[in-house]
Amino acid sequence: MYESFSYRSNKNLIGQQNKINSLLTPALVLDLDILEKNISVMSDFAKKSGVKLRPHAKTHKCVEIAQQQISAGAIGVCCATIGEAVVMVDNGIAGVLITSPVISDQKISELVRLQSIGGKVIVAVDNLNNLKNLNKVMGEADQELDVIIDVDVGLKRTGVDGVEAALELAKFIDKCHHLIFAGIQGYAGHLQHIVSHHERNESVKRDLKKLSDTRDRLISVGLKPKIITGGGTGTHLFDVTINLFTELQVGSYAIMDVEYLNVESGKDFWSYSPALTLQSTVVSSNHTGIATIDAGLKSLATDGPVPIIIEGAPDEAKYEFFGDEHGKILLGDTNTQLHPGDIVRLIVPHCDPTINLHNYYHCIRNNTLVDIWSVAARGMY
Amino acid sequence: MYESFSYRSNKNLIGQQNKINSLLTPALVLDLDILEKNISVMSDFAKKSGVKLRPHAKTHKCVEIAQQQISAGAIGVCCATIGEAVVMVDNGIAGVLITSPVISDQKISELVRLQSIGGKVIVAVDNLNNLKNLNKVMGEADQELDVIIDVDVGLKRTGVDGVEAALELAKFIDKCHHLIFAGIQGYAGHLQHIVSHHERNESVKRDLKKLSDTRDRLISVGLKPKIITGGGTGTHLFDVTINLFTELQVGSYAIMDVEYLNVESGKDFWSYSPALTLQSTVVSSNHTGIATIDAGLKSLATDGPVPIIIEGAPDEAKYEFFGDEHGKILLGDTNTQLHPGDIVRLIVPHCDPTINLHNYYHCIRNNTLVDIWSVAARGMY
Repeated sequence: MYESFSYRSNKNLIGQQNKINSLLTPALVLDLDILEKNISVMSDFAKKSGVKLRPHAKTHKCVEIAQQQISAGAIGVCCATIGEAVVMVDNGIAGVLITSPVISDQKISELVRLQSIGGKVIVAVDNLNNLKNLNKVMGEADQELDVIIDVDVGLKRTGVDGVEAALELAKFIDKCHHLIFAGIQGYAGHLQHIVSHHERNESVKRDLKKLSDTRDRLISVGLKPKIITGGGTGTHLFDVTINLFTELQVGSYAIMDVEYLNVESGKDFWSYSPALTLQSTVVSSNHTGIATIDAGLKSLATDGPVPIIIEGAPDEAKYEFFGDEHGKILLGDTNTQLHPGDIVRLIVPHCDPTINLHNYYHCIRNNTLVDIWSVAARGMY
Repeated sequence: MYESFSYRSNKNLIGQQNKINSLLTPALVLDLDILEKNISVMSDFAKKSGVKLRPHAKTHKCVEIAQQQISAGAIGVCCATIGEAVVMVDNGIAGVLITSPVISDQKISELVRLQSIGGKVIVAVDNLNNLKNLNKVMGEADQELDVIIDVDVGLKRTGVDGVEAALELAKFIDKCHHLIFAGIQGYAGHLQHIVSHHERNESVKRDLKKLSDTRDRLISVGLKPKIITGGGTGTHLFDVTINLFTELQVGSYAIMDVEYLNVESGKDFWSYSPALTLQSTVVSSNHTGIATIDAGLKSLATDGPVPIIIEGAPDEAKYEFFGDEHGKILLGDTNTQLHPGDIVRLIVPHCDPTINLHNYYHCIRNNTLVDIWSVAARGMY
């Protein structure tokens, strides 16, 4: 790990009790007790539901968290990009599934390298030319590659459009000497954040029918998919009820964020808590009703809801973005004044792109820094 | 430089003519001819206007670009954070001004280290306690530190509120044995993106009066500021007309982005062009009227306007965010179909936070990759 200024400063705090207020800010703080509980709850859920877990590493981009998920029973991790897969495989993570098409020649060549060092990667495909390229390159390298067919279930981002298109690709794969037909994928990204519990449930039943129809059609021609993958944190309760998935790609559950706190979880079933906060420092407070903290749009994702303040400001205080490096704490009607040096903690907005803005997780237990983990796949495309 | 997968792949393309389409994507592509022209135009403008330039490195976070700006006559660079300053000073960049208060003990200690290796850093201050801390720590280290007083000119983000508050701090600094009163700062961030040329001009004249009043008051008590710093790309034409600034903190001009293309520049005076594009690849195109590219909200800032497509899609095509790793190219009424592997180029939206999402600039001249520069201060807080 490159010893950047913040790492160099913060590592001295490891093991010092009640010193986390001394962390350089803005700093991602990961509560390992909560992280482990989230991982354990999802693991128990999957076991009880008879599905496997291949959690999405695009959320955390962290080797240590991937290791924890696998220790808790996950069969591997998903990656969104070849760059993330490189980081995972090079650090010993097995069972990597790349959930988006790997298109360019250089990226396909890198798959060959990963295979050659034992990283038995699985790759999602939705296009015939891509399959031809993969088969050709794997042939030249005298390798075999597991591929799954990505089936669009309504998002229209990636995936083949319809059952017959999937069947055509599956038949082609079956004839390729260097590709193995491993299964199908249907990721319902458009359903994950539907607030209503009932509506999300109904949407899963409706939209995932495209994937189960594809499965049935493939079985009817003797091409039974071994892997049927998809699902997410927002829909996992329903994903397991439709007699479809062999494994789930849940990602955010381990970390949680404001976005998922806004989704109706169905209190009896869902018990994931925010494991990640952003610790920030008040840097200026010369203006009535406002304090300025050192956490802005370069340390918090701006695509989703605003962060929620959970410590360091009055209950009625609200966060607003205040430029690249700063956030505005609106203190409301209170007379409470914040002062430079005061610590303010935030629940992060959308966790994936927030984590991608940072180099490190500062891992705590009981208010004590116990480790610093690298966001090793940050910016790895 | 850590040899990440993308760097390892792309460095082989350096010097190969017309091979930039082979870059791993998403990739920031920096046209050095345009960059140098932008730097030169601003440099000439400053010389003609009788002001110095201390360009803001928070925009580019890049040692090589800072070096180019200094070679073209800049007296140093501004940094928003101590972490950025560390990267600049450790890489030999002189004349660093940190434009936000440096608050915590550990960050102040790092100032001592930077001073001890010859980095004569200047720090913005807006708070008495912060001044006391700085003076104490500098005293313990037997050092002197140049400080400037940050004066709020309407943004209310940092800065003292009013002339008398500034005077109080200046008098205090003057008594501190280890602090040198170097000047004042007034950054009008709220004015930079006012679209109307006329309104921006009027706003500069109105709001910067707070800073000139502060200057006059300080002069009246014998505390003449040597440095009067502020200004930005959006207002620089007007910043030099109010007989105030000794130096400008312009940042975006070197790179440019969609946000600044939307601002009325006054065609006769402003000739900065977008030097930075994002090269992306179509990864899926199974759905009518849509192509999916590999550039989403983890590679393009989401706080400003959407990126503009400048190559690889029909004129009427539009970009929409399509999740963490993907963008949607809306092809409109055209029958043109894009295919996986096709290259699409985008002008980046807000340049600062877009650059902060990447590890590298891929530097080109005449469509040929000539160098790869590190976004070395990325994520350095």
